[in-house]
Amino acid sequence: MAEEAVFDLVHMEAVSYVFQGEKISEDEAVAKLEHMGFATGYRLVERLTRESGRFKDELDIMKYICKDLWVTVYKKQIDNLRTNHQGVYVLHDNRFRFLSRMAAGKQYLQYAPRYLAFTCGLVRGCLANLGITCVVTAEVTQLPACKFQIQVQRG
Amino acid sequence: MAEEAVFDLVHMEAVSYVFQGEKISEDEAVAKLEHMGFATGYRLVERLTRESGRFKDELDIMKYICKDLWVTVYKKQIDNLRTNHQGVYVLHDNRFRFLSRMAAGKQYLQYAPRYLAFTCGLVRGCLANLGITCVVTAEVTQLPACKFQIQVQRG
Repeated sequence: MAEEAVFDLVHMEAVSYVFQGEKISEDEAVAKLEHMGFATGYRLVERLTRESGRFKDELDIMKYICKDLWVTVYKKQIDNLRTNHQGVYVLHDNRFRFLSRMAAGKQYLQYAPRYLAFTCGLVRGCLANLGITCVVTAEVTQLPACKFQIQVQRG
Repeated sequence: MAEEAVFDLVHMEAVSYVFQGEKISEDEAVAKLEHMGFATGYRLVERLTRESGRFKDELDIMKYICKDLWVTVYKKQIDNLRTNHQGVYVLHDNRFRFLSRMAAGKQYLQYAPRYLAFTCGLVRGCLANLGITCVVTAEVTQLPACKFQIQVQRG
């Protein structure tokens, strides 16, 4: 509980710091957070997978993201993983930690992308380190639920 | 180990993000990190002490910082606490986590303040929330050891 609080609070500070920057557009700020997440994910997965074996295939890597990685970072697993078996994976988190403290009213929905950008980058960075180039987007369905969509970029 | 990595990496990204900013001086960047630490510490201690009893006195609060708080955030206790009993407290950390990955060469010493600023703010924020106004500075003795000096501001 306490350790989660530290990470949550540092993340919140990073978000508010980036958005305080002068003359920065919403898109630029989101891009910066995504970049911070990417760098974090890239290095994190390097440390985490150092001693684990190789992955069988792409789906195996996605399962690793949904289970081990999510538990490490967010203290819970992804609730549901779907794929079209053609390089698109959708990860449903029914209670995403960075959204769980937001009031559920619709007026806050507009701010949700700020709290998803770091994680989109985190996932992209992890996958990049594991040899998968992809685009990661996120969408809030109903607070605090959201889904992350991974679109693998082939050769 | 894994959770520590997440926090370490996010902190590192925050440092490098702040220092990448255009037209920002070293002092300004350090001040911004200190501010992020302050906000984090202020809120963190609120959550952590919600259920604990009141503190006996100032020294009791300092011991809390050295033990409980340090363990929560840095996974170890402060190694040594000294005070002149006139409002100055010096906390020695013989292996400070944010410095522990830096090479021990003297050429890196100049960058150490960047990795101490957040924590100075964190301590100041915690103490502010507990009713103590102070100035917190840090000094590297020999990597990765450092000391944090707290100067309580009276009246």
